[in-house]
Amino acid sequence: MSIRDLARHLNISIGTVSRALNGRSDVNPETRRRVFEAAAAIGYVPNQSGRSLRQGTTNSIGFVVETNSETSLYGDTFFTSVYAGVQQVFARHHLDLIVLLCPFDQDPLEHLRRVVSRRFVDGLFISAIQRRDPRIDHLIESEIPFMALGRSLSGGTHPWIDLDFAGVAHASIHRLVERGHRRIGLVTAGSELNLGYVFADGYREALAAEGLSFDPDLVIRAETSEMGGYDAVDRLLKLPERPTAVLLVNEIMAIGVYRRLHEAGLTPGRDMAVIGFRDSPQSRFLSPPLTCFRIELSGLGRRLAEGLLATMPAYRDQHPIGLVQEIWPMHLVAGESDPPLR
Amino acid sequence: MSIRDLARHLNISIGTVSRALNGRSDVNPETRRRVFEAAAAIGYVPNQSGRSLRQGTTNSIGFVVETNSETSLYGDTFFTSVYAGVQQVFARHHLDLIVLLCPFDQDPLEHLRRVVSRRFVDGLFISAIQRRDPRIDHLIESEIPFMALGRSLSGGTHPWIDLDFAGVAHASIHRLVERGHRRIGLVTAGSELNLGYVFADGYREALAAEGLSFDPDLVIRAETSEMGGYDAVDRLLKLPERPTAVLLVNEIMAIGVYRRLHEAGLTPGRDMAVIGFRDSPQSRFLSPPLTCFRIELSGLGRRLAEGLLATMPAYRDQHPIGLVQEIWPMHLVAGESDPPLR
Repeated sequence: MSIRDLARHLNISIGTVSRALNGRSDVNPETRRRVFEAAAAIGYVPNQSGRSLRQGTTNSIGFVVETNSETSLYGDTFFTSVYAGVQQVFARHHLDLIVLLCPFDQDPLEHLRRVVSRRFVDGLFISAIQRRDPRIDHLIESEIPFMALGRSLSGGTHPWIDLDFAGVAHASIHRLVERGHRRIGLVTAGSELNLGYVFADGYREALAAEGLSFDPDLVIRAETSEMGGYDAVDRLLKLPERPTAVLLVNEIMAIGVYRRLHEAGLTPGRDMAVIGFRDSPQSRFLSPPLTCFRIELSGLGRRLAEGLLATMPAYRDQHPIGLVQEIWPMHLVAGESDPPLR
Repeated sequence: MSIRDLARHLNISIGTVSRALNGRSDVNPETRRRVFEAAAAIGYVPNQSGRSLRQGTTNSIGFVVETNSETSLYGDTFFTSVYAGVQQVFARHHLDLIVLLCPFDQDPLEHLRRVVSRRFVDGLFISAIQRRDPRIDHLIESEIPFMALGRSLSGGTHPWIDLDFAGVAHASIHRLVERGHRRIGLVTAGSELNLGYVFADGYREALAAEGLSFDPDLVIRAETSEMGGYDAVDRLLKLPERPTAVLLVNEIMAIGVYRRLHEAGLTPGRDMAVIGFRDSPQSRFLSPPLTCFRIELSGLGRRLAEGLLATMPAYRDQHPIGLVQEIWPMHLVAGESDPPLR
């Protein structure tokens, strides 16, 4: 029994029924009474009425992010800029974007279940995607339209967009090899975030493509934070034969990398080449400036929005782009942190 | 007419009425029918039923922030850290925090009205408070519990916490005067954000306290961005008698201030002393390091949460702290951007 049936039964518009059920003051009391009585008589249950009502009533899309966790991997400006892009598309559809914060010490699946059951939103973006992510299975089962920022082994035919972690690994290794480096370390995410695996796989493939052998000692799994970068270099410096260059999964780590090198009396770049991940406000102030990769973030936000709307009945005709499963490109920003090996 | 009245009228519990109205499947159909009929008969309108129903149903609190606007004044790390503090308190009450993003090109009042009418949340935080802020009046009228991050001329007996803009102005002027400066510029917010006014008032009072006269030419109203800082210094450098020091309402501006000084062949600190506002990751990488002020952000988040819960019937017994109207302290972090005048 849907709101559509209720409206047909009463022979009034869906909009009026919806406004009456939502207690809007612009519905006259007699109409409101009729709607309520009919709803009771035919057993209409607002919160279980499925998507059509939800879409008609919330006009909001949620973006699930984790707080204080490895999503801060992206630095905070990352999401702010992505939201702005999403909002550009949503403005045309009068959709609001709300951010659903999953506290870092809570189970993300439990948080998502709560979000879904409260029916705040007509659709969802999820981020901080795990290698296997039960949230994807839950969303598919719940038939909630969603878009994942990041690939996963879970799901399959759901829409996703991922940053080009493998491309960054390839471009970085190629650049470092051209500059004379042969022993290149990798600092990747130490969690179950899928991006850490994708990045490490890209690194292995890129080494192979350059004819270099893979040394597991050179791969450090670390927290994607300043401290994580610090600890990773600490471990690399203790190796019998330390690398001449290091590639980071996250630019915030670079701060800790530089600090640990300075403490060891070494100069970032000159004594150990460093390539960070994303071009961020922070990395611009590092000295020497960090070689990293630029992302067009508001474009990414727009594409995420379009890819989600393409799966939603109410909007897909305006976004006939089909299933979006894309790698978002990143562009090298040459800094001074990776000079040729002397 | 409240849910309480409805429950009394039907002689069943408030909880059962609430569950029936929310379409929960654990209410038997006959009870649901009675509730719906009685609701219609007595003119009960769910969404205007006031706080008790809302609190029973959403268990979510909203934080309204503007995107891409002068709230980025705080830098992005500001809100992330505040949210973490809020969540620490909310976890004890099983409350979720959701962030309601007002696009920078939308009317904040219209956005808030939409948020309120959708009944997503049991209470709200609002930020980017204007000198006169009609959102405050709307929230008071709507009887939604709320907490403002920032003072306003609007409202009066509502809870708020503000950063210590006046205190920062006083401490900065005092420090600069001790270091020999007499001609001190101010760069404040060029918008209707109340903090710009509070900061400028603090500056005037602090000058008076040091026995210095006020020169309106030295007060620049600018966008609180890198470009705003750049433009402000551009204008200060064109003055017949330029200041030897400048005080900024926002640390992001410092990046543009440094850049404009460098372009003029001047060295920040040595040729013009600079004091920024908040200690942020960015300001740590400026050279020379920026003198600024530290805020305990997760503590601020916790206090915001407590101050809000203190106004909510369901939680106030656990937070018996009354009406919170507080200035949050900031602590000087001495950098090298404001050496004594030579």
